[in-house]
Amino acid sequence: MGETHKPKATLAEGAVPKAVVSRLSLYLRELQHLVRDGNETTSSTQLGSLLGFTDAQVRKDLAYFGQFGYPGIGYRCTELIDAVKRILGTDRSWPVALVGLGNLGRALLGYRGFQNQGFSIAAAFDVDPQKVGPAIENVPTFHLDELAAVVAGKKIKLAIVAVPAAAAQEVADRLIAAGIDGILNFAPVTVTAPSNVSMVGVDLAIELEQLTFNVVNQPSKS
Amino acid sequence: MGETHKPKATLAEGAVPKAVVSRLSLYLRELQHLVRDGNETTSSTQLGSLLGFTDAQVRKDLAYFGQFGYPGIGYRCTELIDAVKRILGTDRSWPVALVGLGNLGRALLGYRGFQNQGFSIAAAFDVDPQKVGPAIENVPTFHLDELAAVVAGKKIKLAIVAVPAAAAQEVADRLIAAGIDGILNFAPVTVTAPSNVSMVGVDLAIELEQLTFNVVNQPSKS
Repeated sequence: MGETHKPKATLAEGAVPKAVVSRLSLYLRELQHLVRDGNETTSSTQLGSLLGFTDAQVRKDLAYFGQFGYPGIGYRCTELIDAVKRILGTDRSWPVALVGLGNLGRALLGYRGFQNQGFSIAAAFDVDPQKVGPAIENVPTFHLDELAAVVAGKKIKLAIVAVPAAAAQEVADRLIAAGIDGILNFAPVTVTAPSNVSMVGVDLAIELEQLTFNVVNQPSKS
Repeated sequence: MGETHKPKATLAEGAVPKAVVSRLSLYLRELQHLVRDGNETTSSTQLGSLLGFTDAQVRKDLAYFGQFGYPGIGYRCTELIDAVKRILGTDRSWPVALVGLGNLGRALLGYRGFQNQGFSIAAAFDVDPQKVGPAIENVPTFHLDELAAVVAGKKIKLAIVAVPAAAAQEVADRLIAAGIDGILNFAPVTVTAPSNVSMVGVDLAIELEQLTFNVVNQPSKS
């Protein structure tokens, strides 16, 4: 409490809170916008105000990973972008497997937000023979039975699950057996994985519930 | 630290951390699964273990909103479901407007996860006259110019933005002008709103970045 300068934690020393990792992604987005708009440097105050955080929050979050600012200058945008990408692991390219070629899977194949951040869907899979064969959005499509071979051949470590809820756990199990290390699950169901596999669930109704909570608990609204 | 029984906070007394609200949605999902599987009661230990949280975390989260357990019984599932829905505001039905009828918008029209939680998309909008007119997945579609009239007529308070990044802020502004209180934004760009409007951004690449962070920082992986 009395300390204002904490020793910097290295990643090996302790876990970084998940919320800090999420905010790194937000800082990265704003830094990319700033560079696109011609800015060479920025400050914790500017970054914070763009995102609705305090400058202290920005400094504290970045301090988990090292010292990035320069006295009298602030942060050099492209340098900080490179550092944040290195921390997030997105300084390399990550081929991603997508399973499920229904409406959602097809939408994700065309989602610009992935490409913008260096993720490319390298292969897409479905159990329906009618849905696979021709490339969609330039992504080759395969029957799910070819999963292990394609994942190994393309050295894929990340996968997106966009299948119906009833099939999600089985698909996750097959992905893990094929050597996938991280799964983003869009099926509206909880999927479990061994502790050495990272699982992130995207339940879009949860996001809507956060909205309804905010709306019903906002004093000015009924 | 020494206290084990904290006074319960009412919603009016202080802000509930966002992470707690997110976990409420997860508890709700697990409670719904438990009821579907024929369970009448549960415990903080069971709920926690289903989600990978400690029982203390579950009790602490629920304690923000009141006392829900019974000595020697635990939680009555349907009673706790009703309470959590009331807290989240999903004990009522929320008609939702969707703007953008590209791949993502069409996928969201068919997303089961919304219907499962009582959200129904009541109207969908696009600026392209070719995309509107016939209902899609039983949802009526309209030109964006009809937004204000339809939102008022159907008493819609929540909206989903699934338009290209360049159009997202303008669409949000039009939604807010039409009386929308909460916006779920899927466009890969930061959209700002006045403080009395709740804005939740869904940046799907952020979720993937959380995965890459976990994968690169897991000691057992290279």
